Amino acid sequence: MKLIIGNKNYSSWSMRPWLLLSHHGLPFEEVRIPLDQDDTHTTLAQYTEAGKVPVLQDGDLTVWDSLAICEYISEHYLEGRGWPGSVRARAEARSCSAEMHSGFPEIRGQLPMNCRASQRHVPLGEDLAAEVARMDRIWSRYRGIYAGAGPWLFGEFSIADCMFAPVASRFDTYGINLSETASQYMQCLLSHEKVLEWFEQARVEPETIEMAEVGI
Amino acid sequence: MKLIIGNKNYSSWSMRPWLLLSHHGLPFEEVRIPLDQDDTHTTLAQYTEAGKVPVLQDGDLTVWDSLAICEYISEHYLEGRGWPGSVRARAEARSCSAEMHSGFPEIRGQLPMNCRASQRHVPLGEDLAAEVARMDRIWSRYRGIYAGAGPWLFGEFSIADCMFAPVASRFDTYGINLSETASQYMQCLLSHEKVLEWFEQARVEPETIEMAEVGI
Repeated sequence: MKLIIGNKNYSSWSMRPWLLLSHHGLPFEEVRIPLDQDDTHTTLAQYTEAGKVPVLQDGDLTVWDSLAICEYISEHYLEGRGWPGSVRARAEARSCSAEMHSGFPEIRGQLPMNCRASQRHVPLGEDLAAEVARMDRIWSRYRGIYAGAGPWLFGEFSIADCMFAPVASRFDTYGINLSETASQYMQCLLSHEKVLEWFEQARVEPETIEMAEVGI
Repeated sequence: MKLIIGNKNYSSWSMRPWLLLSHHGLPFEEVRIPLDQDDTHTTLAQYTEAGKVPVLQDGDLTVWDSLAICEYISEHYLEGRGWPGSVRARAEARSCSAEMHSGFPEIRGQLPMNCRASQRHVPLGEDLAAEVARMDRIWSRYRGIYAGAGPWLFGEFSIADCMFAPVASRFDTYGINLSETASQYMQCLLSHEKVLEWFEQARVEPETIEMAEVGI
């Protein structure tokens, strides 16, 4: 398998399938295409018509979009173990992940992922605060319910954790305050061995994307 | 099962799981909550913390977000038959569906679903035209590849068709020109028995949402 990703420092979408593959120790080759460069579009077009990272190539099959790649990996390589085992937890984990996938525009826009930055501050307007509060409720609720089964959002590590890992990085960068349970979950994500590896690799990337450098 | 939806005329997200359930003849009760009313928020809060339709209640389990509901129905009630059977087509159908789920902001914003309106015209600016072209490529490509297996995007009817049905309605309302193959696929969606039933029910809804009434 070959996973095409953007900058580790900035590409939250890329981080998700990378983390799923890495967590499960599935072998893959990584192709990094720095975003926002003169040749980004041309280089990316060699791999995908959708024009976005991440993309997974598995032999002559091309799979794109973070969530679809995660579903493919789960179904094809993990016998469905990308999601929690119980019907209820699977449905809830998919619901949270899909809500993340199509929602949270304020968090996306105002708190861009910037793994190597810290102690940045942005004004927490009403819409952004509402999304942070919603994220906090999701994290505290499911972390609370499934705590007995493990430290992850639904007990055992799942695709939902991959979907939320970039949010943990954002909240860390911009010093967002969370409830105790949500904060514990965030720390759990931030101390995942493979998340730390991703951060380490982000730190040594030479590129800077100005529009993603926000906060003071 | 109880499916909570918004206005049939305007709620593209609601149409998707409704169509999947209806196509497969799965029994469900429908709860319609008109959007953009004074009591919408309060009524919706009885069903979901996410604050958005659609929501599926199955006994005491709540599943939300169009795509997560479709995955749940497919896995739990259709033995996975919500997606095409082959590994390749499943991955491609999920990729297209996920791209639709998180993308196409111009189509979403500038061509709001308005089932009962027709012959509306909006200016086709560069960004919108690029998204229409991308949609056309997706539709013509997969309709072409899988034509031998049936009339739907991946041959047999799948969740991908549910994801694109509201786009067919939009393109029809606003008179968007497509290539021949994409146009045939659009007509296929628009003549699906259950899609016609949805349109019929949209036509008799009394509410009007001003911000979704665009075009001249």
